[in-house]
Amino acid sequence: MSAESDFIAALRTIVRDEAARQLLDDAAVMEFGKVRLVITHDMIVEGVHFLSSDPPGDVAWKLLAVNLSDLAAKGASPVGVLLGYTLARGPDWDEEFVRGLGSALDAFGIPLLGGDTVAVPPEAPRSLGLTALGRAAGPVPSRAGACDGDLLWVSGSIGDAGVGLRICRGDLAGPQSLVDRYRRPRPRLELGQRLAPLASAMMDVSDGLLIDAGRMAQASRVGLTIDLRALPLSQSRLDVCGEERPSRIEAATAGDDYELLFAAPHEVAPDILAISETLGIPLTPIGTFGGSAELRLTDGDQAVPLPPTLGFEHRP
Amino acid sequence: MSAESDFIAALRTIVRDEAARQLLDDAAVMEFGKVRLVITHDMIVEGVHFLSSDPPGDVAWKLLAVNLSDLAAKGASPVGVLLGYTLARGPDWDEEFVRGLGSALDAFGIPLLGGDTVAVPPEAPRSLGLTALGRAAGPVPSRAGACDGDLLWVSGSIGDAGVGLRICRGDLAGPQSLVDRYRRPRPRLELGQRLAPLASAMMDVSDGLLIDAGRMAQASRVGLTIDLRALPLSQSRLDVCGEERPSRIEAATAGDDYELLFAAPHEVAPDILAISETLGIPLTPIGTFGGSAELRLTDGDQAVPLPPTLGFEHRP
Repeated sequence: MSAESDFIAALRTIVRDEAARQLLDDAAVMEFGKVRLVITHDMIVEGVHFLSSDPPGDVAWKLLAVNLSDLAAKGASPVGVLLGYTLARGPDWDEEFVRGLGSALDAFGIPLLGGDTVAVPPEAPRSLGLTALGRAAGPVPSRAGACDGDLLWVSGSIGDAGVGLRICRGDLAGPQSLVDRYRRPRPRLELGQRLAPLASAMMDVSDGLLIDAGRMAQASRVGLTIDLRALPLSQSRLDVCGEERPSRIEAATAGDDYELLFAAPHEVAPDILAISETLGIPLTPIGTFGGSAELRLTDGDQAVPLPPTLGFEHRP
Repeated sequence: MSAESDFIAALRTIVRDEAARQLLDDAAVMEFGKVRLVITHDMIVEGVHFLSSDPPGDVAWKLLAVNLSDLAAKGASPVGVLLGYTLARGPDWDEEFVRGLGSALDAFGIPLLGGDTVAVPPEAPRSLGLTALGRAAGPVPSRAGACDGDLLWVSGSIGDAGVGLRICRGDLAGPQSLVDRYRRPRPRLELGQRLAPLASAMMDVSDGLLIDAGRMAQASRVGLTIDLRALPLSQSRLDVCGEERPSRIEAATAGDDYELLFAAPHEVAPDILAISETLGIPLTPIGTFGGSAELRLTDGDQAVPLPPTLGFEHRP
């Protein structure tokens, strides 16, 4: 158990309302008559979720994108955001951040509604929060609805952002497209809205495919087997990292992908593939729910032990 | 201009939506059909808005209360909150915080809906955010609606929390009731809902009566004269600090009051006094809007120069 999961377990003891979905989800769902609102709040901290050297405009993009990705995973369309901002170490960074946030909001057509700005001591890391509100037209899939026999699907490609981070840190050489996957993730908003009526469970991949898929299986109280060989890897990643098993495991545990991960019954596979074709976004079945309630890995037909770390856990 | 006001001015350049009220308000207002939602996000930072020595349960109370106070000032009734939490320096503080948050939520009958938890380096100050959602039954007063001839009113008593902070710091001796005003402010939720249909402008007093009243006058583009002698001071404060002019100026600039400050035309004064009597909360007229667009102070009949600092401004 990490400090974070202990803290969330403690928080669960004070949750009273079903809108909170027992904090098992990345977003709350509230109904007001016929209006179904989805609300999420994510923070990113300097040195933890972004590098001090990351361009401020990219940090603004990422702060917005990670929250929109939570809305995407609930099939919601964004209606506005509130910003929680720490002022630190002079105005240049702040100005670039605001310009970047403006461009990002314009790119997604979303209004800034308000928020708060506080000063922090100059030595404190920047700690940025964003609350995003969305509206869902139909049912809002939780992460807890996967059923025995469902397929596990993932959108796009996995592991690009992890390589992008290594390039940013100077550990590796590689193309800008991989850096962009790390710094400027693209939330799958339209895709999420189309998948929501078909998915029995949905979430985004933020901490790592294996850890997040394991959370879906655990919340759904059903086993899950993921085939490493089925993972969708981009050509850029293949060029830099190859396609051997260690590289696939790295892709499946690196996180920051902001792809959609969803469970759906076999019979809707043709509908899912039709959505993939319409939007031009790869959607790949990578696993099957069922069996004893644990996470299992294969590489083709061969069973593979779980790696010691399934993804990013927030430890203080 | 402070770094904060510069930053907010920069943010205004990227605001496109009227729900944001040009960031002149402490809350955003969104309409979904007949549903009118009020949304606010406030942060509090260790060493800036609370002391490291403050009990964690009181910090949780304050984080909730300052956000509910923003809803109160818009006449909204709270429907739920999301928490943004930084994990730092061990679980004891966190456990006490969660217990305190649970009690505070129960005290106000408000559900926790979700949020995010992130780890920060052990030397970083705790930086806590809360998003509160409320629902307004009627019109939502902004801070920009005060008119020439309106009276300025304030609820409760002013300056208690400022003395409470000095007691906490060991600068002064005084009763626990003043410490409680600093650590456990009581948002004026029911009062705000009753005043909203009568007020032409409303906000809460968070940074200091004079700075906040000046913001209301500036946003409303109308002058304002405040009579220091009219300020409602509690008996506890009078016992500790006396009632001379320097003490009144200190009360008017100390902040953390979380009282409601509102403008209303003369003719609704009887209705306001009736609400005061019903709820048992003092409501006191302390100034008049009109004249050239600036903030003026009197002490009874005598004009008094503005103090160099009107309240708390967030400087990095």
